[in-house]
Amino acid sequence: MEEKEISQAVIGRLPRYFRYLGELRDKGVERISSQELSKLMKVTASQIRQDFNNFGGFGQQGYGYNVNYLYDEIGKILGLDKAHHLIIIGSGNLGQAIANYMNFERRGFIFKGIFDNNPALKGKVVRGLEIQPMENMEAFIKDNDVDIAVLTIPKTAAVSVAEVLVKNGIKAIWNFAHCDLNVGDDVVVENVHLTDSLLKLSYNFNCKNKNS
Amino acid sequence: MEEKEISQAVIGRLPRYFRYLGELRDKGVERISSQELSKLMKVTASQIRQDFNNFGGFGQQGYGYNVNYLYDEIGKILGLDKAHHLIIIGSGNLGQAIANYMNFERRGFIFKGIFDNNPALKGKVVRGLEIQPMENMEAFIKDNDVDIAVLTIPKTAAVSVAEVLVKNGIKAIWNFAHCDLNVGDDVVVENVHLTDSLLKLSYNFNCKNKNS
Repeated sequence: MEEKEISQAVIGRLPRYFRYLGELRDKGVERISSQELSKLMKVTASQIRQDFNNFGGFGQQGYGYNVNYLYDEIGKILGLDKAHHLIIIGSGNLGQAIANYMNFERRGFIFKGIFDNNPALKGKVVRGLEIQPMENMEAFIKDNDVDIAVLTIPKTAAVSVAEVLVKNGIKAIWNFAHCDLNVGDDVVVENVHLTDSLLKLSYNFNCKNKNS
Repeated sequence: MEEKEISQAVIGRLPRYFRYLGELRDKGVERISSQELSKLMKVTASQIRQDFNNFGGFGQQGYGYNVNYLYDEIGKILGLDKAHHLIIIGSGNLGQAIANYMNFERRGFIFKGIFDNNPALKGKVVRGLEIQPMENMEAFIKDNDVDIAVLTIPKTAAVSVAEVLVKNGIKAIWNFAHCDLNVGDDVVVENVHLTDSLLKLSYNFNCKNKNS
């Protein structure tokens, strides 16, 4: 595969392809045409072909796509053929929800530790992991070969905690705090801004219901 | 303001403008140029001007933007000058995290009820609301003028619950279930697919760390 810059829009669509292909595979479907996939996913067949062409194609003229093969290839592109070690910073409801979501572990995202400064949570066990105080975090990252940190703490603390994480070798942050993190270009930040998502819903809701 | 179709990309950026302007306002900043806003938000000044031009501009040549005014106007565009009634379906950790997030209520999103079929949760109180069994849901929607439903249930149940919601007059669904909902075009669906977000992070992480 040629090395080229793939747009974030294409990358953003890969997990959805992966999800649909996984469901097809689970149903025993062996092959699918771009037209059928298009109908199922409600995107144009031309978009599907263009997206896959970024990675060299995958399809065969007159045959379509082999579901298993395509699923595995997209999985590899997404880095799911490797295991990743994660820690969660912030063990409130959101941190616990993420820790308890089985699906992530099935995909190779292994939760190694969970941290919180709230003394009321000290010693509480979340998915087999005892909540640890924040002062343990730096040593833990080094000892456990942690690559990814999940930030589910309020924005007031997020920026400074992110700096500590990066200083200790964290290469990717899944950020649920409602702020942008200023980390270097070599650190991947993926934001989940729930408020932004709700405001987008609100915009679309109010547009549709303006006259009612 | 002229009625025209605004792209979802522009709409997706509005909440971030709103967030930055709110922070500027809280700091007492009265006006800001598109250049300063550009530097702060790390988007081009031309993008900012183009985005705002979709709504008629807001800026004044040689003055820049009035922070308070712009904040209020974007708030109105986002529908935040009206109150919305929400229910949450699924009172696991994620449902509870959303219910407990104070910021939503401050923006006019009022949680009216929370529902779950898990008998272990029956009678538990989340943010002042007693968790109700699912069979109460339909009557509750009608009696409480609910517009928005938040779906934090597994995907196996989400599609059928969404149908019931729409049948009972719900006009917008904030969907955290890991599936696409097939509801009519008159219903707004805003998806938060956490797995998709983590896979996107994984892709970008693996691209950057391929050779290490």
